Amino acid sequence: MNLADYEAFAREHLDAPLFAHLDGGAGDERTLRANRAAWEALTLRPRVLVGVDDVTTATTVLGRTVKAPILAAPLGFQELVARGGAAATMRGAARAGVGAVAPTISRATPAELAAAAGGLHWFQLYCFRDRGITNELVAQAAAARYDALVVTVDGPVLGRRERALRAGWEAPTDLVVTATGLTVDELNRLVDPGLSWRDLEWLASFGLPLVLKGVLTREDARLAADHGVGAVIVSNHGGRQLDGVAASAEALPEVVDAVAGRLEVLVDGGVRRGIDIAAALALGARAVLVGRPVLWALAAAGEDGVAAALTLLREELATALALLGCRSPEDVTPAHVAWRPRPDTP
Amino acid sequence: MNLADYEAFAREHLDAPLFAHLDGGAGDERTLRANRAAWEALTLRPRVLVGVDDVTTATTVLGRTVKAPILAAPLGFQELVARGGAAATMRGAARAGVGAVAPTISRATPAELAAAAGGLHWFQLYCFRDRGITNELVAQAAAARYDALVVTVDGPVLGRRERALRAGWEAPTDLVVTATGLTVDELNRLVDPGLSWRDLEWLASFGLPLVLKGVLTREDARLAADHGVGAVIVSNHGGRQLDGVAASAEALPEVVDAVAGRLEVLVDGGVRRGIDIAAALALGARAVLVGRPVLWALAAAGEDGVAAALTLLREELATALALLGCRSPEDVTPAHVAWRPRPDTP
Amino acid sequence: MNLADYEAFAREHLDAPLFAHLDGGAGDERTLRANRAAWEALTLRPRVLVGVDDVTTATTVLGRTVKAPILAAPLGFQELVARGGAAATMRGAARAGVGAVAPTISRATPAELAAAAGGLHWFQLYCFRDRGITNELVAQAAAARYDALVVTVDGPVLGRRERALRAGWEAPTDLVVTATGLTVDELNRLVDPGLSWRDLEWLASFGLPLVLKGVLTREDARLAADHGVGAVIVSNHGGRQLDGVAASAEALPEVVDAVAGRLEVLVDGGVRRGIDIAAALALGARAVLVGRPVLWALAAAGEDGVAAALTLLREELATALALLGCRSPEDVTPAHVAWRPRPDTP
Amino acid sequence: MNLADYEAFAREHLDAPLFAHLDGGAGDERTLRANRAAWEALTLRPRVLVGVDDVTTATTVLGRTVKAPILAAPLGFQELVARGGAAATMRGAARAGVGAVAPTISRATPAELAAAAGGLHWFQLYCFRDRGITNELVAQAAAARYDALVVTVDGPVLGRRERALRAGWEAPTDLVVTATGLTVDELNRLVDPGLSWRDLEWLASFGLPLVLKGVLTREDARLAADHGVGAVIVSNHGGRQLDGVAASAEALPEVVDAVAGRLEVLVDGGVRRGIDIAAALALGARAVLVGRPVLWALAAAGEDGVAAALTLLREELATALALLGCRSPEDVTPAHVAWRPRPDTP
Repeated sequence: MNLADYEAFAREHLDAPLFAHLDGGAGDERTLRANRAAWEALTLRPRVLVGVDDVTTATTVLGRTVKAPILAAPLGFQELVARGGAAATMRGAARAGVGAVAPTISRATPAELAAAAGGLHWFQLYCFRDRGITNELVAQAAAARYDALVVTVDGPVLGRRERALRAGWEAPTDLVVTATGLTVDELNRLVDPGLSWRDLEWLASFGLPLVLKGVLTREDARLAADHGVGAVIVSNHGGRQLDGVAASAEALPEVVDAVAGRLEVLVDGGVRRGIDIAAALALGARAVLVGRPVLWALAAAGEDGVAAALTLLREELATALALLGCRSPEDVTPAHVAWRPRPDTP
Repeated sequence: MNLADYEAFAREHLDAPLFAHLDGGAGDERTLRANRAAWEALTLRPRVLVGVDDVTTATTVLGRTVKAPILAAPLGFQELVARGGAAATMRGAARAGVGAVAPTISRATPAELAAAAGGLHWFQLYCFRDRGITNELVAQAAAARYDALVVTVDGPVLGRRERALRAGWEAPTDLVVTATGLTVDELNRLVDPGLSWRDLEWLASFGLPLVLKGVLTREDARLAADHGVGAVIVSNHGGRQLDGVAASAEALPEVVDAVAGRLEVLVDGGVRRGIDIAAALALGARAVLVGRPVLWALAAAGEDGVAAALTLLREELATALALLGCRSPEDVTPAHVAWRPRPDTP
Repeated sequence: MNLADYEAFAREHLDAPLFAHLDGGAGDERTLRANRAAWEALTLRPRVLVGVDDVTTATTVLGRTVKAPILAAPLGFQELVARGGAAATMRGAARAGVGAVAPTISRATPAELAAAAGGLHWFQLYCFRDRGITNELVAQAAAARYDALVVTVDGPVLGRRERALRAGWEAPTDLVVTATGLTVDELNRLVDPGLSWRDLEWLASFGLPLVLKGVLTREDARLAADHGVGAVIVSNHGGRQLDGVAASAEALPEVVDAVAGRLEVLVDGGVRRGIDIAAALALGARAVLVGRPVLWALAAAGEDGVAAALTLLREELATALALLGCRSPEDVTPAHVAWRPRPDTP
Repeated sequence: MNLADYEAFAREHLDAPLFAHLDGGAGDERTLRANRAAWEALTLRPRVLVGVDDVTTATTVLGRTVKAPILAAPLGFQELVARGGAAATMRGAARAGVGAVAPTISRATPAELAAAAGGLHWFQLYCFRDRGITNELVAQAAAARYDALVVTVDGPVLGRRERALRAGWEAPTDLVVTATGLTVDELNRLVDPGLSWRDLEWLASFGLPLVLKGVLTREDARLAADHGVGAVIVSNHGGRQLDGVAASAEALPEVVDAVAGRLEVLVDGGVRRGIDIAAALALGARAVLVGRPVLWALAAAGEDGVAAALTLLREELATALALLGCRSPEDVTPAHVAWRPRPDTP
């Protein structure tokens, strides 16, 4: 029926510590809850009598066409959710006609994941203290002709995900990230807290457009534009890094305003409905990333589940566009959304 | 005691899928809940020592007198709720002295429903791709001397009503809309998503005043005034079309402000109390439409139930007017309502 | 321990329909709940190092000294709560050193209630269509040397108290208001909905200062000042008349602002704590009236209960004043209260 | 896992009346709840790509270095929680590298508590009517070379802590404050409600910097600066004095703004997380005090518990700083926090 059904399935069928790790957030999960609540606080403003007999959800992201402004988010540990998980997600997203971001944390190599993709596909990168490893990963991504490199910038240290810890979650010691030859634990210890704007130049030198994932403020959005990145993803890492930061839907307007069209803005965190995507477009996002629902669909039915879930979301968006009086994502404007109004009369 | 009693009765006695279909909204039912909450967020400002020994609830809507500024909303499937449902509602509304809007989706013909009406009565129209069917319906309505034609403009495609779907609701295949000779399913597939402002001219040519049902923004309210319609109904289709849009009480002020008296504004969605009607009048509405409560009253006691429920609402309004210090609906002004105030002191 | 204890006792020990009648409000009881919530939304701003070794709660109301700015509200049906109820309340209030308002609806005569009073005492008046009855009541009050006449202005018609009706409450047919020789039902039917500002002149002619009970707007507050009344009571009749009106604490600031010191302003509705009284003083009230808690104390222990409850409230106020850095009610200023602040940073 | 675990332990293992006394607040505990809610209403604004490979939580408070901007609050009755309680807390805080405030109400003398401290340590003072006792206490504190004298200014009279009273709490008659030779009850009766700004001069004459604990308004903050105190602690006594006052996080900005850097501002009340401390720093606090969690840790494991709990908080702060893009407490600015934004679009 809707994405919540996949979550209910996964909650029941996945190993409890694994589910807690994937579903949980940092600290008291304030931001995790806020992510969802922020979309629900937005009010859509529908226009009527527009004539919507030819609605399309298709658009472009960084110049490449997608059937809908949706990407599967880069998710670690997908091989624990389903056999060949990350590749299955790439294939499922391709079947749904939407984009996908290949994760660093996967048994599959960047080349294998690129081969599984069928349309817009980006490679997500954690930067490591050992620049040789980072270099190797980016070189593989460039060789595999990814459309862009997604640099995760909200993870200089790892957030404390208490729900996962309480549930007894431990990263499996035998999960080797093939591209690096290292286990997840080894990689986690290598993540570079010193990563800074200066390093972007080096990363850009590989020739792939850069996308920064984890920007939440106008200040950093402007710096991103100044450094020539292609896009930023407004994200709080699904509430998994610093608890207490703004919901991504709350941070989106200030980022959109700050970049003033100099780069594309995407958003993730709590997107569960076609109307959430419509609201994101109205607030100025080019596209959204969907994370946990993809995992739950993967758990439920592998590649087929991912394709079905993302197709469902695309169809919900089509209905939302028609009822908003928009024939395409490009027709959605800031006037199509309002925060729950609080007029003062008289 | 109050309209909630009818709902409790219907919830218990109606077939569960039918109740889910009639009571449920689209998606997560955010707008359905918001409709009710928005009336409850309004604060009435009563005036005292006015002298209210001669209170009347009577007023006019599009020039025709009603005993109260209330209309029974156009509701499909009433024949499933009670034998001869739609006609019973027309009769019950007439007995209560209030208006009624005959629905397209009924076994009864426009002529039969007009004959059952006893005062202000409008005909609600869905526009179909097959303009012959639409033409036929409007011609029948014009011949039956309805006071106005209510064009539903928030339904270019059908909202996804998940509660109904989960409950196993399916429109009965044998429910034929006599005026068209087609079943509900056949008609649903024929609804014209391409309907636009240009079509209003054609609809106006039948000679009935036009009322647009489903306007939620100042922009469309202005366009309606520009196109010479007689009234707009601020409505989100009872939360059954696009989930996430504003509560009708929230959208009402901007619509009233935008039309600046050029046409009449009505409102529906969540009206359950006389004080809701008083608040609607204060926000500038000419009248309200009442939907689900009419269905529940119809389920409870047919025509008698509808008459009793609408009379109860009229009496609640009379009490509210007296306690507001208003002798009639015309006495209610914007100064009689405030949104819950949030003063800052000091 | 606090006033809530008396309520718990009364809820358990009073006859259920009587408790429902006394405790319940009109309609959905939105205003009844809002009354309490509004006091809780206020934030006190305490000053320190003031030196508060000599705190007093004493003040004056309409020129007469009370040990605390508190009055027992005029409550009908007190004889059903405890034998000799209304007189017991007058005596209890006198023992606590606070004021009391004698109700119209009582078996005791105005003279008997005045005799039971021991300090500030006012007489509450419903105006009846039969001006002879009204005249007789006021004449008795004047003869009994009440300090003021409290005219209830928010009751031109009776609010619909659904909780009481559902509980099966009926006013006992044998409860005769001795001063008039009529039963409560007979009197209810005689209440004059036509009462208006013009009638105040006549009521003033009896020589008692007039107090208007039930003013909620700046507009009526100004009219009251223009008509020379001595005080207004900001009140929504304990949420028992028009459901949906503002909480009394919300309406208080606009009334205080409008009268600009031309008359005294009192407030009732939801006052349960010394800090509520302190907040009322800070918002500009001269004193508060306490209603239901007096009934519950009366039910629990008659005159002793009333004296104890009102003394407890006075002591709570004394503590609140000391902790606010105020040596007396006169020291409490608008700077001692704020609505829950919502600063925007940055 | 986090400080909530200690609370759960203490709730289960401490004597119920003692727990109620320590955990409970005044009146309806509105302020107690607001303290926590206010921190949760703050939104952190993290900066990325700053390079945070060398994060420190160390800072100075009144010129003295601490490993983190945290002090154990002055808590009475610690000897009832664990043998040698107050001294154990001083030692635990020292082991965690943070400050500690020795309480007046302890079996241990100021000298013994100073000896147990290992870094920043202040002495908290209640002022008594008998200036001899006060004089004696301050003299002992000065002799023991405390870094500052913390004058509690929000306790001219004792707040009414109803939860404790309902639970049957009574201060043990044999708890003698050794430094004075008097029991707690005797001391409570001696607290001086007349304490005023004039008395500060006398207290300052002992040569220790003065810190005022319990300031909640800009007015008193300015007066404190005018009187030359070294720091103020924005505090509502953990919600234990005047119920209904602002949450300390809500009052903090106006105090910081008012003192304009003329003195240091600390805050206590509801601090349970590293992100709360980060938010406090962003709002302009120099450091925070932690109260109840120290008691729960003391109950759980004595000195070891206190050291572990405060170390955990310090580590949470280190993570928060890194994820905020701050290398030290000094890097945290007002731009790192926002109140939950409520933008209006369009």
